[in-house]
Amino acid sequence: MKIIFTLSLLWIGLSGYAQDDKEVMASIYKNALTQGESYEWLRHLSNEIGGRLSGSLNAERAVNYTKEELDKLGLDKVWLQPVMVPRWVRGTPEFAFIETAPGKSINVNICALGGSVATPAGGLKANVIEVSSLEELKTLGTEKIKGKIVFFNRPMQADLIHTFEAYGGCVDQRYAGAMEAAKYGASGVIVRSMNLRMDDFPHTGSMSYGDLPNNKRIPSAAISTNDAEKLSSMLGIDSNIKFYFRQNCKQLKDVQSYNVIGEITGSEKPNEYMIVGGHLDSWDLGDGSHDDGAGVVQSMEVLRLLQLSGIKPKRSIRVVLFMNEENGLRGGNKYAEVAKAKNENHVFALESDSGGFTPRGFSFDCSDAQFNKVLGWQPLFKPYLIHYFEKGGSGADIGPLKDDGIILAGLRPDSQRYFDHHHASNDTFDAVNKRELELGAATMTALVYLFDKYGTAPISNVNELKN
Amino acid sequence: MKIIFTLSLLWIGLSGYAQDDKEVMASIYKNALTQGESYEWLRHLSNEIGGRLSGSLNAERAVNYTKEELDKLGLDKVWLQPVMVPRWVRGTPEFAFIETAPGKSINVNICALGGSVATPAGGLKANVIEVSSLEELKTLGTEKIKGKIVFFNRPMQADLIHTFEAYGGCVDQRYAGAMEAAKYGASGVIVRSMNLRMDDFPHTGSMSYGDLPNNKRIPSAAISTNDAEKLSSMLGIDSNIKFYFRQNCKQLKDVQSYNVIGEITGSEKPNEYMIVGGHLDSWDLGDGSHDDGAGVVQSMEVLRLLQLSGIKPKRSIRVVLFMNEENGLRGGNKYAEVAKAKNENHVFALESDSGGFTPRGFSFDCSDAQFNKVLGWQPLFKPYLIHYFEKGGSGADIGPLKDDGIILAGLRPDSQRYFDHHHASNDTFDAVNKRELELGAATMTALVYLFDKYGTAPISNVNELKN
Repeated sequence: MKIIFTLSLLWIGLSGYAQDDKEVMASIYKNALTQGESYEWLRHLSNEIGGRLSGSLNAERAVNYTKEELDKLGLDKVWLQPVMVPRWVRGTPEFAFIETAPGKSINVNICALGGSVATPAGGLKANVIEVSSLEELKTLGTEKIKGKIVFFNRPMQADLIHTFEAYGGCVDQRYAGAMEAAKYGASGVIVRSMNLRMDDFPHTGSMSYGDLPNNKRIPSAAISTNDAEKLSSMLGIDSNIKFYFRQNCKQLKDVQSYNVIGEITGSEKPNEYMIVGGHLDSWDLGDGSHDDGAGVVQSMEVLRLLQLSGIKPKRSIRVVLFMNEENGLRGGNKYAEVAKAKNENHVFALESDSGGFTPRGFSFDCSDAQFNKVLGWQPLFKPYLIHYFEKGGSGADIGPLKDDGIILAGLRPDSQRYFDHHHASNDTFDAVNKRELELGAATMTALVYLFDKYGTAPISNVNELKN
Repeated sequence: MKIIFTLSLLWIGLSGYAQDDKEVMASIYKNALTQGESYEWLRHLSNEIGGRLSGSLNAERAVNYTKEELDKLGLDKVWLQPVMVPRWVRGTPEFAFIETAPGKSINVNICALGGSVATPAGGLKANVIEVSSLEELKTLGTEKIKGKIVFFNRPMQADLIHTFEAYGGCVDQRYAGAMEAAKYGASGVIVRSMNLRMDDFPHTGSMSYGDLPNNKRIPSAAISTNDAEKLSSMLGIDSNIKFYFRQNCKQLKDVQSYNVIGEITGSEKPNEYMIVGGHLDSWDLGDGSHDDGAGVVQSMEVLRLLQLSGIKPKRSIRVVLFMNEENGLRGGNKYAEVAKAKNENHVFALESDSGGFTPRGFSFDCSDAQFNKVLGWQPLFKPYLIHYFEKGGSGADIGPLKDDGIILAGLRPDSQRYFDHHHASNDTFDAVNKRELELGAATMTALVYLFDKYGTAPISNVNELKN
């Protein structure tokens, strides 16, 4: 009986709004695909600016560019929110080789992990011990590790359909590998790139030393998947081969930077805030097109598509371009801190930070009752092949806003190719398809439209229709 | 009452087979993603052989290569099915320019359409008349068209979510443009490439002169989307500009070729045939990786995955690699003709010919009752993000098998990028992602497994469980 009752409620709901909402959604998608600006914005961010590591000149240029573009949209407010960010610099290109005998060596592709210390100026050469997990370090102990380079070589699990799960199952090696190996006296760490494809690109990403004192910190780098296989097979033949690497990256003083924010002020409930965002910073090897130029321009496009489709939101809609997601999350933390200090009531936040590929749906961090409301909207998304509505994580930058009432959501694009490019020099504009990017922006806009129209209160709330 | 009854039936059905089927499907997907051969087969077809136009040496090499690979699988039978195919050759590279004044010209990118006649040896130069449809020719009439080059410039409609619909709405210009324009005395035809992206690649494809006598046939070529825009805007400034193009393509005599077929003979119902296939021929500009190398290797992989996953089919499962889909469909017609002559009972046919991108589901050409049976399997596909189950077309090569009983199906991958590459020189191996290709092969295998296990009879048939 309860099921039937719920279905009837949904049906009444749908028949009440479906026709109108269908038309609005058709208009949003059509505008995105025929009059979109997101691809041109991304071209500029990627090709005219490039990689935007926190604290870099390019990050500053990206702040200025996106602020200017938001200014042109005629929003109600556009501003910069100051935030101090870490500044890590890569220095000159890294260099590495496998030495099979004195004078005999094979060059391999590596890159320093973000936050790593440098090697000694002349580089570091040592024997290598290959491990497949942090736990394995304990088994081996100081005796077998001391002085050596620890090589973490556990691959991403290929049979997981969601590639982010495979990433989640591996990234501890990158993040904590050096911190843990240093405790057993390792001299350095090499980590297999978080990449499901066999190729020659090393993939950087953040790592941490925890509370290790400076003099205990050891250099850490990623090696390409092809070269990880090579190193592993050569170790299988001769465990006495040596690995050499040199990097002169450095952590400098924090610098001033900004979150970039634009707002359409709500017509009826201006003090209820709904935000869409991505992160403006990127790693430095590529131009950060998928991570997260795509999310930045899609989020900007949400506000533009609302305007273009004649939607006047009841609530205040903000686009927030967060600074420093990659190596600090300072922008996300700052935004939440200010929102709390000003007592701003944030009811919904949506992040796009999973690449600019064909959108499949969303994951939601909210109550079951709120999630049921979303499920009622699923049929509206079907014509656009948007089918994935699950409870789960949302996005790193909006995480600090979490409280009991807010609905957090993350756009979920097709993930199969994402880690081919993630944090590597091939995360470039040519790997983004215009239509896929635009479909993502339209899908985000449609969700914002529905939440603004029907509110974020769960469907069981009988006042819903007045929201 | 009826709805509840059907749901209960489905429920009983699912609880009856779900656990076992879940495990089998998990094994299929895992094997595809961790022990797949399809990507390596495609690498060979694409990089070691290349474009495989019907009647070419490369097409012959592709026949030999795929036969050898099927032989290695230890199937019950592998054979070549002879079929005569047309042989059209492109000749030397095409050349074209827009002439704004005598001696002043801008080169543009074109390619002859498949089946077109050559221009005169010295090329063809004439004024241009731009039209947006075949119908517009009638309005203009012989007076305005005679002697001119007709430029068909209707773009693919960007706001259609299914790009194949946008293709269907445009391709009449390519297929029938020359045939129709010739009736009004046009001297040649230039067609905007069937491509949703703005770029410099011309896209070839089949065209027909219908029953026009040889001396009435006029040359026809595709122009890249960027150059179509250029030509159109220059015509807007000065309608007297001229267009020059030269091509020396030629239709030669039909030659002998083959469909390549492999079979696992059914353990219980060997005289019921289920086939999976793609087409072995391709256009000549790229290496035919997406169209349809992907479908070829995925179809081969279906039989390999059945073996690898320990599935012994009750019915006979065939892989059929069709020759000459692109410019004649001779392979598809021949296969159906032989099947009919031998009175072979084909109950199911699945084609993959929509690119090697992330699979989203299938479309089915079958009765409503048969389709309802498929819908009952949807939950089994959900973990693999396969959500698209619709009635609709299947595939060109399997179309000739259509009769009242057979279920025809087509794999439906994500279509957003497909026409970026279709029939153009950038349909190459690097545009195919290994995981996406493998997921397609696994998805096809899962469907074949379910149809073999539960039969193709509609769900209302109470004998279903005995099938």
